[in-house]
Amino acid sequence: MKKVVVTIERQYGSGGRTVGEMLANELGIHYYDKELVKLAADESGISEALFVEADESIRQGRAPLLRRMKKSVYKGELISPRDNDFTSMQNLFNYQADVIKKLAETKPCVIVGRCANYVLRDYDNVVSVFVHAPSDFLMEQAALKQPMRGKELEKFIKNTDKYRADYYKYYTGERWEDAYNYDLCLNSGKLGFEKCVEAIKEYMKVRFGEDVFEQ
Amino acid sequence: MKKVVVTIERQYGSGGRTVGEMLANELGIHYYDKELVKLAADESGISEALFVEADESIRQGRAPLLRRMKKSVYKGELISPRDNDFTSMQNLFNYQADVIKKLAETKPCVIVGRCANYVLRDYDNVVSVFVHAPSDFLMEQAALKQPMRGKELEKFIKNTDKYRADYYKYYTGERWEDAYNYDLCLNSGKLGFEKCVEAIKEYMKVRFGEDVFEQ
Repeated sequence: MKKVVVTIERQYGSGGRTVGEMLANELGIHYYDKELVKLAADESGISEALFVEADESIRQGRAPLLRRMKKSVYKGELISPRDNDFTSMQNLFNYQADVIKKLAETKPCVIVGRCANYVLRDYDNVVSVFVHAPSDFLMEQAALKQPMRGKELEKFIKNTDKYRADYYKYYTGERWEDAYNYDLCLNSGKLGFEKCVEAIKEYMKVRFGEDVFEQ
Repeated sequence: MKKVVVTIERQYGSGGRTVGEMLANELGIHYYDKELVKLAADESGISEALFVEADESIRQGRAPLLRRMKKSVYKGELISPRDNDFTSMQNLFNYQADVIKKLAETKPCVIVGRCANYVLRDYDNVVSVFVHAPSDFLMEQAALKQPMRGKELEKFIKNTDKYRADYYKYYTGERWEDAYNYDLCLNSGKLGFEKCVEAIKEYMKVRFGEDVFEQ
């Protein structure tokens, strides 16, 4: 197929990741989410553990989010290994972004999370998707993966999405839930997963032409 | 065709209204935007001028938006003509909402603006669309309709969208630009108007079945 990259951001429980995997399987293209961290670790020579730690510091609110907002917005440059900031959160993100760009320049694929839509916002071959759903649907789906129920589960979903929004804000300066940041936003609660996949494929045909999936 | 209603909210300059008109024409169904005010005036017996004045008071920031937020969120009830609040902003909105609901129960149509997506959020036959575009596209399109240029035009676009967001917040309590509030968000800058129409039609086929447009 044509070299099209689909990026997916998603609410916890919306099934955005499942939709991404289904889409990649159907199209016979590669699917990336956590694997990106490994690729970035390999490229930079920085330990994978440091990447995980950077994510965790945002999750736990340890990163001084608001004060450093401007400084942390992604500009695209990599820092030299001799620099003190080589293992800073910004530079770790920059290496991830570099891996994402190289993937987008090489082959069609699906990338979930990691602000890939922002990193690739100037690429013409990218479809950035946001998947969301009403809260009863999120609860139902989350209950399949988590042992919690009721208020506790609701809070877990809310916190996970807050982490995703904070992560996005930290590195892009933008609001994660703003429709502006995506080419296509879908409500999976109304469509279900299979029809989400179908809707993304139909969008790809409309945007890139009927022959987008041909070899 | 099946009784499907498409609601459209849109950034100023994104061409969302044009997309709505094109879609209605192609499908041979009715298109509503300002006409709704006239219908609501007819139904309520309240002068059309009062509806226009209510809109203006939000545009000019005269409505005490934040303090009254909770009181103004739409609940769906109509107030008796004997009540003092009969011509309140809330009741005027309620009449508009009532007209929107009656339309959605009667026939397929396209409705632009007026928080129709929120009013119809529990209707299964509704596709709520948000159309947005990058700022250079908005500027280009806005320049076709407005005599302003440069900073002045940029400010006009920003203020118009702020008015739309305030109006939405005032009556729904929700953020206008949140992807959560829509079934489908599209970037018209990347698609152009014709492909937006096509994308909405393809979405309708995926959601309601291939025969959605049949008589």
